[in-house]
Amino acid sequence: MKILAVDSSAGPASCAVLENGRVLASSFANTGLTHSQTLVPMVNDMLKNAGIGIDEIDLFAVSAGPGSFTGVRIGVAAVKGFAFASEKPCVGVSTLAAMARAVQGLPLDGIICAAMDARCGQVYTALFEIENGKIRRLMDDTALSIEELKNHVELCKKNIILIGDGAELCYNAFGASVKACPAPANLRYQNAVGVAMEAESMLDKSVSADQLMPVYLRLPQAERELKRRLGQID
Amino acid sequence: MKILAVDSSAGPASCAVLENGRVLASSFANTGLTHSQTLVPMVNDMLKNAGIGIDEIDLFAVSAGPGSFTGVRIGVAAVKGFAFASEKPCVGVSTLAAMARAVQGLPLDGIICAAMDARCGQVYTALFEIENGKIRRLMDDTALSIEELKNHVELCKKNIILIGDGAELCYNAFGASVKACPAPANLRYQNAVGVAMEAESMLDKSVSADQLMPVYLRLPQAERELKRRLGQID
Repeated sequence: MKILAVDSSAGPASCAVLENGRVLASSFANTGLTHSQTLVPMVNDMLKNAGIGIDEIDLFAVSAGPGSFTGVRIGVAAVKGFAFASEKPCVGVSTLAAMARAVQGLPLDGIICAAMDARCGQVYTALFEIENGKIRRLMDDTALSIEELKNHVELCKKNIILIGDGAELCYNAFGASVKACPAPANLRYQNAVGVAMEAESMLDKSVSADQLMPVYLRLPQAERELKRRLGQID
Repeated sequence: MKILAVDSSAGPASCAVLENGRVLASSFANTGLTHSQTLVPMVNDMLKNAGIGIDEIDLFAVSAGPGSFTGVRIGVAAVKGFAFASEKPCVGVSTLAAMARAVQGLPLDGIICAAMDARCGQVYTALFEIENGKIRRLMDDTALSIEELKNHVELCKKNIILIGDGAELCYNAFGASVKACPAPANLRYQNAVGVAMEAESMLDKSVSADQLMPVYLRLPQAERELKRRLGQID
C-alpha cells in the first residue's frame, strides 16, 4: 500500500510516499515560502522524480493539526483534493504524533517532547515515552504555556528529546532543571515522512475526502480577540 | 554559508541544501530510477520549490565513495559540473561518514555500523562510536566480507546501530551473537542531508571542480575479472 503524505502545519512544507514502511520518496523545504504556492508543485515534482503516478497512491495523509491555522488548512485542502479526484481514502494524523515518529526504532530510552511554537508564549505539545525504540503516548495533544510544559517535564526523571519547531524555544526556557536535548537539525522539524508513518499505523481511521477535518486546539486569533472584547474569555 | 549536497552512491538519489546546520531543503527518491536521468532534475526542482538560486550556493558536496561505481561517478560528475559552472569550490565526503550523521546529536550511546551492500558477500563499512550524540570514527572506510565485519562488531560490547542499504543484510547475517538494530526506515538510507552535514565539518578540505575525485575501495568488476584471469588476484 502506497501512502502519500503532506505536511504544511508550520514553517516547513514537505511531502513523502511510504510503501510498507519504506520511504520511496520525500521532499522538504524550510525557507518560508507560502505553502499555498509551493505544496502542490512540490508533490508533483516528487512524484515525477521518483517515477510514481498519483493513480498508484492508495491513501492520502495529512498532518491535520495542531499547527498554524492557515498551514493546516492548506494541507487538509490539498489532501481533500487529491483524495476526491482519485476517489481514494484519506486520513488526518496528529502533527505531534507524526513528529515523534522521526526517532522511532532507535535504541533510545526517554521522553519525546513534541513541541510546536504556538506563539503568545504557548506551545502545542504532547509527550511520548520511547523505550528501546517503541513509542507510547503519555498525553493528548494540548496547548500549554511553556511554563506549564516545564512543570510537566520536570516530573519526568528521564532524558527529554525535544522535537519540532518549538524545540529550541523550550530548551532555552527549561534551563538546567530539565535534562533535555533538542533533536538534531535533520530530525527537528515537522516532516511528511513521519505523517506517512503515523498514517500507516491507523489505516482503520481513514475517511472519504468530505469527512477529513482539521484539528485546532485553540480558537483562531480573530475569534479569540472577539471573545476577549465581548468579555467571554480573559 | 549554503551547502548543496547530492548523493547517488547506491540505490537512492537525494539532494539537500544546508545553511549553518539548518536544513533548508531536501529531496529523496528510492524507486530504482537511473541517477543519470533523475539527479539533476531533482536538484533543479528542489531549488525551485525552496526558492533558492544556484548562484546562492557557496559550496557543493557529494558522497564521493565508497559506493556503486556508476552511482558515485554520476554524483561526482554532477557536482563537478555545478562547481565548475558556478566557479565555487566543492568537496567529496565519505558516504559512510555521511550516513553516520543521520543519528548525530541524539542521546544515544553505542556503535554506529555504516554498511553498504557491495555485492559478492561484501560490504563497504566503517564503525563510529556515538556517545551522548557525539560521533567518533573508529576505523577507516573499508570493504569487508560480512563475516569479517561480524568478527569486528562482536568485540564491541555496545548497542550496534546498523545504518545504510546493507543494514538488513548485516542484521540477518549477524544473528543473535551481536546486539544490533537496523536504523528505522526514515534514517536507514544514504541521504544528501548527511552529506551536507559532513561537508560542513570539513570546509578546509574543499577543492576546485577539476580536483574532485571519486574514492573507490575496490577495483571495478571488469578489472577484477581481468586480474583474476591473468592470475594476479584470487
